[in-house]
Amino acid sequence: MTAHSATRVHLGPVEDPYLADGIRRAGGVLVSLDEAEAIVWAQGPDTFPATLPDSVRWVQLPFAGIEPWFEAGVIDDERVWTSAAGAYAGNVAEHAAMLLLAGIRSLPEQFAAQSWRKDEFDPRVGTLQGSTVAIIGCGGIGRALIPYLTASNAKVVAVTRSGTPVEGAAETLSASRTGEVWSTADHFVIAAPATSATRHLVGKAELDQMSSSSWIVNIARGSLIDTDALVEALDAGSIGGAALDVTDPEPLPDGHRLWTLPNAIITPHVANPATTLPRLLADHVAANVVRFSAGEDLVAVIDPAAGY
Amino acid sequence: MTAHSATRVHLGPVEDPYLADGIRRAGGVLVSLDEAEAIVWAQGPDTFPATLPDSVRWVQLPFAGIEPWFEAGVIDDERVWTSAAGAYAGNVAEHAAMLLLAGIRSLPEQFAAQSWRKDEFDPRVGTLQGSTVAIIGCGGIGRALIPYLTASNAKVVAVTRSGTPVEGAAETLSASRTGEVWSTADHFVIAAPATSATRHLVGKAELDQMSSSSWIVNIARGSLIDTDALVEALDAGSIGGAALDVTDPEPLPDGHRLWTLPNAIITPHVANPATTLPRLLADHVAANVVRFSAGEDLVAVIDPAAGY
Repeated sequence: MTAHSATRVHLGPVEDPYLADGIRRAGGVLVSLDEAEAIVWAQGPDTFPATLPDSVRWVQLPFAGIEPWFEAGVIDDERVWTSAAGAYAGNVAEHAAMLLLAGIRSLPEQFAAQSWRKDEFDPRVGTLQGSTVAIIGCGGIGRALIPYLTASNAKVVAVTRSGTPVEGAAETLSASRTGEVWSTADHFVIAAPATSATRHLVGKAELDQMSSSSWIVNIARGSLIDTDALVEALDAGSIGGAALDVTDPEPLPDGHRLWTLPNAIITPHVANPATTLPRLLADHVAANVVRFSAGEDLVAVIDPAAGY
Repeated sequence: MTAHSATRVHLGPVEDPYLADGIRRAGGVLVSLDEAEAIVWAQGPDTFPATLPDSVRWVQLPFAGIEPWFEAGVIDDERVWTSAAGAYAGNVAEHAAMLLLAGIRSLPEQFAAQSWRKDEFDPRVGTLQGSTVAIIGCGGIGRALIPYLTASNAKVVAVTRSGTPVEGAAETLSASRTGEVWSTADHFVIAAPATSATRHLVGKAELDQMSSSSWIVNIARGSLIDTDALVEALDAGSIGGAALDVTDPEPLPDGHRLWTLPNAIITPHVANPATTLPRLLADHVAANVVRFSAGEDLVAVIDPAAGY
């Protein structure tokens, strides 16, 4: 294959070896920005070129959540933009599964113990076996989470925009029926995109309907949960607990009540750690280079109007 | 159905409602010990009847690990004895999955933090994605663990006595080839029965072959790991960490080094907590009552010669 037939890709701002390999095995060649018909960008918007050559018809961004790119005014209507939506779904779902299991099975207090307190902990260890778990916003991450839940013989209720049945879920509800899950499911995983419509999706009214053993996991965006209402529920013990990889505000400031509540688990937005990012992104990029070369629709195309 | 045709079961030492319901829906009737042809026992050996009527042809014990029953000299050759092997496999596998994920993803140190230390933790959060996990002793628990691992796109290497391919495992090795896994798999879950042959299955020689990011999970019995060798490896950082629901000695005494090592997670033998036991045992008991009534082979028959 010559440079004339191969897709000319600019990989910036640095030539990550995983991504370079992904582009090459998809039949692409690495070129400078001036010669590029496609850009694969491996970092945030700060270092992104202020202007792009007209020859660039496609830009691949490295993140699944692309609010900062919209805020930076980088995304235009002149070309196709794709996010990394889907590339990290498995990694984030793995984190969500860990948070849910660790919460339900009281791991944090057991880890803190320095004595064999079996009689005390045994009644506090719960199980997902036979429980019902609602996944609010069952897109790529939610779908990747389902196999962990069915492994635990849990029943999955998926909530999606359309309500089209999700494979592996016992039931799928359209977003307009989200209100039904709060009093019927045992546990909740928030995996919906952050939009004006999903802000404070979980507030006092929703928390009040949950049971005292319900855990809520958020691996989406902090704004989807009303933090003040959540702290109140955790403080009162009206829900079992919350495990949050994202918070509002984020970063969570020192001294915030969430840091010290015993039924809150906080991980600092590390569900998809930077160190594993290029390795997981490479396959996604390779698939899109193949599609671009063939003139096919790309995966994870950004809709500037929808904001994701 | 009359008492003459229904299987006469003595449920002791207390009439647990879940188990009573399981026996009745299998067509059994609850009777006193004197009238019983079968016994379902819901507690430990201490309160077990010293002598049994000859009419008792089957005894169902409530635990999967039945060493204490052998030690108490309760199990005889006069009748069929069944354990609860398999009934709790899902629950224990769920605990094993949680321990492995929590270890690999550095949850304990994140839980202890009271500040947003993203830059510090991000490089320390690992992933199961693309890793290889060996399950040593891939029986009921191990098989129930596989779906969690494949959900994480991990490759599973199963080790069983026979080496007969285990569904969902990429590779199955017979016990005689156990030695091959220590240097080839990334992480290890110990799920083999405790016998004289499996004592110190993991010792210094095995730990020395593991990588500095390898986690080892033990949800079987403490004796399978040489604790002193493990403490040495954890102390030196020659392996990533260990997550143990069982220990040797057990209970782990106060002041033991394992309590304070930052890369050791200890849960006090709570993988299958007592509170969830009757609920999970009821289906197992019901299935065996049906089989007993029909004169069929029972599930989880104990082999007094093998010791499990």
